[in-house]
Amino acid sequence: MSKPTILVVNDDGISARGIRALVEAMKEIGDVTVVAPDSPQSGMGHAITIHNPLRLDKVDIFKDVDAWQCSGTPVDCVKLAVNKILNRKPDICVSGINHGSNSSINVIYSGTMSAAMEGAIEGIPSIGFSLVDFNLDADLTAAKHYAGIITRAVLKGVHWKELLLNVNIPNLPLKEMKGIKICRQAMAKWKEEFEERQDPSKQKYFWLTGKFINPDLGEDTDEWALANGYVSVVPIEFDFTAHHAIPRLNKLSWNE
Amino acid sequence: MSKPTILVVNDDGISARGIRALVEAMKEIGDVTVVAPDSPQSGMGHAITIHNPLRLDKVDIFKDVDAWQCSGTPVDCVKLAVNKILNRKPDICVSGINHGSNSSINVIYSGTMSAAMEGAIEGIPSIGFSLVDFNLDADLTAAKHYAGIITRAVLKGVHWKELLLNVNIPNLPLKEMKGIKICRQAMAKWKEEFEERQDPSKQKYFWLTGKFINPDLGEDTDEWALANGYVSVVPIEFDFTAHHAIPRLNKLSWNE
Repeated sequence: MSKPTILVVNDDGISARGIRALVEAMKEIGDVTVVAPDSPQSGMGHAITIHNPLRLDKVDIFKDVDAWQCSGTPVDCVKLAVNKILNRKPDICVSGINHGSNSSINVIYSGTMSAAMEGAIEGIPSIGFSLVDFNLDADLTAAKHYAGIITRAVLKGVHWKELLLNVNIPNLPLKEMKGIKICRQAMAKWKEEFEERQDPSKQKYFWLTGKFINPDLGEDTDEWALANGYVSVVPIEFDFTAHHAIPRLNKLSWNE
Repeated sequence: MSKPTILVVNDDGISARGIRALVEAMKEIGDVTVVAPDSPQSGMGHAITIHNPLRLDKVDIFKDVDAWQCSGTPVDCVKLAVNKILNRKPDICVSGINHGSNSSINVIYSGTMSAAMEGAIEGIPSIGFSLVDFNLDADLTAAKHYAGIITRAVLKGVHWKELLLNVNIPNLPLKEMKGIKICRQAMAKWKEEFEERQDPSKQKYFWLTGKFINPDLGEDTDEWALANGYVSVVPIEFDFTAHHAIPRLNKLSWNE
C-alpha cells in the first residue's frame, strides 16, 4: 500500500503545541497536509463562516509538511482542505490534539470534534484527539503515542464509511495508561455559572464558567474509562434523529 | 393550569422578523421572555463564548414582553436566560422562526437548533422552527400558525424529559399545507463550492457556497415531507454515540 494521505486540523490554532505533536505522530504514518485556524477557535461547535470571506495562507512552520492557516472555523478548514488544497479526499482526517477534554457532552461544543465530524460528513474516516489537560504546557507524549496507534488501527482495519471517533486521552504518564476502551458518550452536562463583573464604565458583563456534572455511572462510558486510566474511544454519528421518539410523537394529538 | 413560561430565542438576531412572528404566536399561549443575539448568528452551530465577556441588555422592542439582547451566540442566550434572567427553567424553549431551512444535515450547522439543543440539555422541552425561505421578506403566516399548534401539542401531550424537535415549514400558503409529519433526518449533505475572488490589494479570498445534495430517497425523511407539502417534525437527541459501531470497533486490532 502506498503512503496514506492524512489531513491534520485542529481548533486551538495552527501554532498550538497539540497540533505540532499530532503532525509529528502522523509523519510516521503518511503524507501529511495541515489546514488549521490562524487563531484559537475553542468552543466553536459546528460553526461555519457564511457572512465573511475566508482567507487561506500557506505557512512554513512544520518541517517537510505542507501547511495552510485559515481565517475561518475548524469546519471551514476541512471544507477548504478537501475542495481547494487537496482537491480530493484524504485517506483520513485527524483533528487535535486538543488541549482539554472533549468527552461526554463536550463533543457538542467542541471545535476539534466539529472538524472531525465535517470530515466524516465528507465521507473521510475521521478522528478527534483530545488530552484531558487544559494546561498549554501539558505533556503530550502519551497523547501522541495513542494518536499514532489509533490512526494506524483505523487505516488498517476500518473498511466502512462514515467512521468518526471521539478519542480522549487521560492526563497520565504513558506507563500508567491501562489501554484503549471503546465507549459510549456519558450523559453528563455542565452546570453553568456566570461570573458577573463591571467594566471601567460601570457596565455589567459576564464570564461563562461552569461545573461538570456526571450523573451517568455506567462503566461503558467515556467518563468512566478516563477516570480509570483508559484512553476512551467513542464512535460518533451525525444522524441526530431520536429514532426511539418517533412512535411516541406519532401518538400525540396534533390538532390543527 | 396556570400560563406556561415560554423562553423565545433565535439565531438571526433580536430584530429579525422571524422572532417577532414567534413572539406573537407564543403570547397567545403563555408568559413570554425573549433572549436573543444582538446581531445575526447564522451558521454558528453549537458555539459558546468562552474567550470573551458577554453583554446582556434589556430592550423594549416587543409589546408586553420582557426582552434581552446578548452579545453572544444562541447557546449563550439560553444559558444566560436560564441562569441570570429567569433564574429557573421555563416550561418550554422555542427557537426561531429561522429564515431558511434547517432540515436534514443543516441541523448540525444551525444556530437555531443549537439554541433548542441547549434548552433540551438543560432539561427543558425545546423546539426549533425554521421556514424554508431565506428571503427576509418571507411570508411568515403559515410558519407562525404551525409554531402555535406544535407548541400547544407539546405543552399538552409531552411528559417525557429531553424533548427536542427540529420543525421545518415549507414555503407554501397556509391553505396548501398538507399537515404535520413526524420524520427522520434525511442523510443529505452539502457539496461545497468556494467562490474565489481578489481583494483591492490583489489578495485572494473565498466565499463559501454550495449545493444541497440528497441521495436519501426515503419517504420517512424531513426532505420528503417538505417536498410534499408537509411540516416536518424530527425528534433530535444529543447522545451522538454511534451505538451500532461499538461491537465492530471492539473487533478491531488495537496494537499497542
